[in-house]
Amino acid sequence: MTTTASASLLEQLETFMASDVYPAEAVYAEQLDEAEERWAQPPVMDALQAKARGLGLWNLFLPESDWGAGLSNRAYAPLCEAMGRSFIAPEVFNCSAPDTGNMEVFARYASAALQERWLKPLLAAEIRSGFAMTEPGVASSDATNISAEIRRDGEGYVLNGRKWWTSGAGHPRCEVLIFLGRSDPSAPKHRQHSMLVVPMDTPGIRIERNLSVFGYDDAPHGHAEVVFENVRVPADHLLLGEGRGFEIGQGRLGPGRLHHCLRSIGLAERALEAMVKRAKERVTFGKPLSEQGVVMEWIADSRIEIDQARLLTYDAADKLDKFGNKAARYELAMAKVVAPNMALRVIDRAIQTFGAAGVSDDTFLAKAYAGQRTLRLADGPDEVHRASIAKGELAKSGR
Amino acid sequence: MTTTASASLLEQLETFMASDVYPAEAVYAEQLDEAEERWAQPPVMDALQAKARGLGLWNLFLPESDWGAGLSNRAYAPLCEAMGRSFIAPEVFNCSAPDTGNMEVFARYASAALQERWLKPLLAAEIRSGFAMTEPGVASSDATNISAEIRRDGEGYVLNGRKWWTSGAGHPRCEVLIFLGRSDPSAPKHRQHSMLVVPMDTPGIRIERNLSVFGYDDAPHGHAEVVFENVRVPADHLLLGEGRGFEIGQGRLGPGRLHHCLRSIGLAERALEAMVKRAKERVTFGKPLSEQGVVMEWIADSRIEIDQARLLTYDAADKLDKFGNKAARYELAMAKVVAPNMALRVIDRAIQTFGAAGVSDDTFLAKAYAGQRTLRLADGPDEVHRASIAKGELAKSGR
Amino acid sequence: MTTTASASLLEQLETFMASDVYPAEAVYAEQLDEAEERWAQPPVMDALQAKARGLGLWNLFLPESDWGAGLSNRAYAPLCEAMGRSFIAPEVFNCSAPDTGNMEVFARYASAALQERWLKPLLAAEIRSGFAMTEPGVASSDATNISAEIRRDGEGYVLNGRKWWTSGAGHPRCEVLIFLGRSDPSAPKHRQHSMLVVPMDTPGIRIERNLSVFGYDDAPHGHAEVVFENVRVPADHLLLGEGRGFEIGQGRLGPGRLHHCLRSIGLAERALEAMVKRAKERVTFGKPLSEQGVVMEWIADSRIEIDQARLLTYDAADKLDKFGNKAARYELAMAKVVAPNMALRVIDRAIQTFGAAGVSDDTFLAKAYAGQRTLRLADGPDEVHRASIAKGELAKSGR
Amino acid sequence: MTTTASASLLEQLETFMASDVYPAEAVYAEQLDEAEERWAQPPVMDALQAKARGLGLWNLFLPESDWGAGLSNRAYAPLCEAMGRSFIAPEVFNCSAPDTGNMEVFARYASAALQERWLKPLLAAEIRSGFAMTEPGVASSDATNISAEIRRDGEGYVLNGRKWWTSGAGHPRCEVLIFLGRSDPSAPKHRQHSMLVVPMDTPGIRIERNLSVFGYDDAPHGHAEVVFENVRVPADHLLLGEGRGFEIGQGRLGPGRLHHCLRSIGLAERALEAMVKRAKERVTFGKPLSEQGVVMEWIADSRIEIDQARLLTYDAADKLDKFGNKAARYELAMAKVVAPNMALRVIDRAIQTFGAAGVSDDTFLAKAYAGQRTLRLADGPDEVHRASIAKGELAKSGR
Repeated sequence: MTTTASASLLEQLETFMASDVYPAEAVYAEQLDEAEERWAQPPVMDALQAKARGLGLWNLFLPESDWGAGLSNRAYAPLCEAMGRSFIAPEVFNCSAPDTGNMEVFARYASAALQERWLKPLLAAEIRSGFAMTEPGVASSDATNISAEIRRDGEGYVLNGRKWWTSGAGHPRCEVLIFLGRSDPSAPKHRQHSMLVVPMDTPGIRIERNLSVFGYDDAPHGHAEVVFENVRVPADHLLLGEGRGFEIGQGRLGPGRLHHCLRSIGLAERALEAMVKRAKERVTFGKPLSEQGVVMEWIADSRIEIDQARLLTYDAADKLDKFGNKAARYELAMAKVVAPNMALRVIDRAIQTFGAAGVSDDTFLAKAYAGQRTLRLADGPDEVHRASIAKGELAKSGR
Repeated sequence: MTTTASASLLEQLETFMASDVYPAEAVYAEQLDEAEERWAQPPVMDALQAKARGLGLWNLFLPESDWGAGLSNRAYAPLCEAMGRSFIAPEVFNCSAPDTGNMEVFARYASAALQERWLKPLLAAEIRSGFAMTEPGVASSDATNISAEIRRDGEGYVLNGRKWWTSGAGHPRCEVLIFLGRSDPSAPKHRQHSMLVVPMDTPGIRIERNLSVFGYDDAPHGHAEVVFENVRVPADHLLLGEGRGFEIGQGRLGPGRLHHCLRSIGLAERALEAMVKRAKERVTFGKPLSEQGVVMEWIADSRIEIDQARLLTYDAADKLDKFGNKAARYELAMAKVVAPNMALRVIDRAIQTFGAAGVSDDTFLAKAYAGQRTLRLADGPDEVHRASIAKGELAKSGR
Repeated sequence: MTTTASASLLEQLETFMASDVYPAEAVYAEQLDEAEERWAQPPVMDALQAKARGLGLWNLFLPESDWGAGLSNRAYAPLCEAMGRSFIAPEVFNCSAPDTGNMEVFARYASAALQERWLKPLLAAEIRSGFAMTEPGVASSDATNISAEIRRDGEGYVLNGRKWWTSGAGHPRCEVLIFLGRSDPSAPKHRQHSMLVVPMDTPGIRIERNLSVFGYDDAPHGHAEVVFENVRVPADHLLLGEGRGFEIGQGRLGPGRLHHCLRSIGLAERALEAMVKRAKERVTFGKPLSEQGVVMEWIADSRIEIDQARLLTYDAADKLDKFGNKAARYELAMAKVVAPNMALRVIDRAIQTFGAAGVSDDTFLAKAYAGQRTLRLADGPDEVHRASIAKGELAKSGR
Repeated sequence: MTTTASASLLEQLETFMASDVYPAEAVYAEQLDEAEERWAQPPVMDALQAKARGLGLWNLFLPESDWGAGLSNRAYAPLCEAMGRSFIAPEVFNCSAPDTGNMEVFARYASAALQERWLKPLLAAEIRSGFAMTEPGVASSDATNISAEIRRDGEGYVLNGRKWWTSGAGHPRCEVLIFLGRSDPSAPKHRQHSMLVVPMDTPGIRIERNLSVFGYDDAPHGHAEVVFENVRVPADHLLLGEGRGFEIGQGRLGPGRLHHCLRSIGLAERALEAMVKRAKERVTFGKPLSEQGVVMEWIADSRIEIDQARLLTYDAADKLDKFGNKAARYELAMAKVVAPNMALRVIDRAIQTFGAAGVSDDTFLAKAYAGQRTLRLADGPDEVHRASIAKGELAKSGR
């Protein structure tokens, strides 16, 4: 995919955002609020997906493979950023987490049979999926703590444990989970865990509740707490091999973190636009906010921080393309620390500019803040990434 | 009221918090969630209020007057702080906003008839009240912008306008509002507005919706948007006199801001306690969080910031007692800037310490964050208070 | 000493500062710059000291004792703060570090003979002293690292080692040092060190150089690097007993840290005054800086931070008086972290307000910044104090 | 100049830095300190320049022109950054301010005669130059305030006024100044000023003093305060034309700001390296600083901030090359705000890691801090650049 092609895709995407996605946001919210069943797909999403797919704006996240658009991470970056501007956009283009990461796992590590059964309908957005990793009982920021049990038993595996923040598992169309658990407690630390494909309709799976983020339930996807009691899956549902869970996780998390960062940047950009617009319109103490020094400083700092975060994240995407997950891990960690913290600051300034409207749902800002706040924890908390960056720095040769 | 008496009250209050209030928090939440009607008083609140009243832990906010406990602001400070530790506590002791401010207004500025009709049942917590000031259409941080109309008409006044963030107006027991509007656009800037008592059952009042704060509806009090269409009230419902709305507002806002700050400090203290407890229990990368340098720094900074905010706010309370609202206005403004920002930082660190649990409703932290965030806007945004502090500094003589 | 007496002392002190000290600052600088010998006492200091002593504004730092003013730390606090406003003031009133701490050590731990020999002339400002603790070779923030050797040898002790940042040792009138060294490496960690009185004219002492602070040599006191080679002192020059060096250090450091904090507050207050004055005078882009929102925010934040730091430090002084060094250690640590960091921020904003003049010696600001920066390291770096505060918080009972 | 050529130049430059420049730093300092005359060129500089010139590492800053290396700003960026690592390096390669900016002005705006007379010896480093713009009497951050007088008189111009911070004017080889003054107070605001070439030996020029930065005199270049009394220069010493001073200033300041930023990044990078080295070596409380969480966080944040500043500044260089000064002005302003503030934070953390050594001249850190602090003021203070960035954002179309 050439740069030109990517630029043209971006233009197409932005045009479609303007014509179809932004106007649909209110419709989506309304359909969700007025539906009898809260955990149902608002119909407007199906319509948007059909249209986006028809335009070729579909599965753009997938790198070189038989399955996807074949964009590099760097080429995908501005597209992913643009999608981040709207809560509903990533799904419109079938580029939303956790499905993207799961599709990548299927594309890279699953058997042809599993790909046929799960990857194909995922790529068509006919079904949704979840990623069952985090556990309430342990500090999951140190993933070696993950303790859900995977036990070999005859022709298959038996799973037991409790997961939470399995985002998307509450969606009515969620049909499959990827599950991380400990298969061999006696193995070396990073070889104890395995990853398995688990159909949602397997007996023993119980969605206990959906967690809220601040006061948002994030329906119809939500964040589920899921109990696994003697859940039995066939042996061929194991991915890559026993003890190779972290290996897969590494591959999955690099682009996954990158996408989160890119969406954070898009969202921050939209918050800044909203802040600028508001600052021009709102008059207080005799002049518009946009002429008041403190507000101008907020605007300037926001522009500075967004641009810096974008340059850092695009650079990480480039390194990821050129040198792979491991070599790019410090760049990815830096972007992961920078992007959500930046977005939180920008959104917070926008809230302050909007006054009380900013904390309500009359603007998108409070929900945006809540969502971004989770990203200082999800996929590794800031302090774990900082420790990793420091270790990289300390390890540089010649010092 | 001597310091000893205040210390003894604090002990009583803390004992009651431990024995009755904290254990009731979950009950309150459950009753709220399980009620058929969301906007109803959970029965546990009535029980707690009865008990607190029986113990004399009641209306402690009211300064020297015929009506209340007669505590000075400084004596009330640690009590108010202690109440701030629990979302439900201020109401348990009949010390919750906006009723406290409204009761003060009734006590200081209302006729005996209005006091008999409204103040007495408010002091008995038989009814609730709202304060209708902020408007969606104007930047209310500059209160001279307030534009709801108060028009003299025969024997009474006719009100027209749209208010929002009229907290508590959605409560089923809310029976009266205090209303700020413009009665004379041709008067000097600070003499254009008046304040009126408006019974909720007056024809023409319509609660249009309840606004949410970061996804929380804050039922059963909530934050209402209220439309006033040709609402007619008798002339004797005017407080103090035409054009004297700001005069009342000044008196009302001083202690009101102070109470917000004190509750912020109590809440931050509780967040720090929760963080410390979590840090001791949670093990990651081979040792408890409480032994990790970065987390220790969070704890130290939180302790430093809480103590500084408390000293500043108690000092403001003392100045308010000794020198009055006007003389203490810079101290109050400083506390108003410091306390919620401090609380937000402390709560944010606590969230980070709790990981994903911190953003959910399994802890009180996300809701605490949302509530504190509104206080950087309510009763004047940070930047307006900062500008006022700067002006005070610039005006000091001899420079 | 009653509060009234302290208030009257403060008034006297401020009057004398205005009439004599501020006007002498330029004279002092000039005499220093124009002297043939840079490391000589500018004559104006002698004159100021004589006058201050005559007014009873002398040795105010000394707590209840046979020797000094008998002010509590809390009563001394505003006096010390006021002195901090001028670089030359503390010495004018014989209240400057390290002499104050050394005089306290003499008053509390030295024999009558040593007091007669050294304390008396120090109290009369006839001589100056130094405190030889920090070493270039070890991380002195962890004082158990201190490794200069104290060896018993016949009738006396023999000292060997290298010290630096022995402030004041370069002063021409410096006649005595208090020396911390390791006397017994085999003892428990906090019993290995002893403190000794060392006359400056003892053979084997060599001032190797004076260190600068951000380019400032701080003559005529300076910060000396001192080599001790087989320096022999009589056994009766040992303070308190072998292995009790840290015990003395604890007593010395509490008030010492407090005084630094108080002076930081006074200096910050003066920087804010200078900033306010400049902001009113300087016109840019058509209006004075004092009307520009960003500068107003600097002023407001400075006022807020100064007041908070003062309240915290005064509170620490009060706790120190009431409960002693050990009980007040967390309050002292908090003040020690807060005060210099606050002062640095305030001074930095003042520099920015002054533009290029602010970084030059046309204002006192750059030198003030340099001095305050050392206080984030001296008497324990920020991060060590923060760790101690966190440990205190974690150790609170009932958690 | 291709990227490859630039990469090869960088390698050469870094090799020469390692072999010749770093080892010469101490020599330079020693020669300066031990010279009889402080304002003299240390001989080692001549030697280094001769060698650098011989290697072709010379005048690399000059963009496409008849005179210089012809590197684009983007190609020069890593070279300039590398030079910024050492205080003496920019001059070694004849790439130091203010000569670089002055040479550009001569190359672009001066007559052939003036070029022959001044540019040639400047390019050969035979002479030095100064830029006389900032004035003590007015807020020079708003350059329209500049009030030194340029009066037409017969065959020439007569200059009167007082300038300060004319860096380099104190150097013994400084032979020429570029002077900005007001030639027509009645013209439109941005057409009132002109720029002139002024030989240093013109009668009426008096260097009144050299200003210090914090306590550093920055000899032998320094920062001079220069008085102009009836200084008469020939009419052909006018650059570009009367009233076109700002036009030249704009062209001069773009690359000048960029170079400052690049050097800040190089210096910060060296500070981080020093911090990392120190953290590995220094043991406190039983383990090296490099294993203590707080220090690791300093290291991580420094890496993150340096990389972000570099990406932003390189991007600004690229935009400057592609679209010119005016189109790149917001990117340049952003870099100008970000780079010195970043460097100050990184250097400050390094100071804290080094303890007391960090504030002395045993490390390069205190001097580095002082120098960077001036860059938040020089070429426009932060707040002016932020205001400009905000205006750019507010002006974007479609909002």
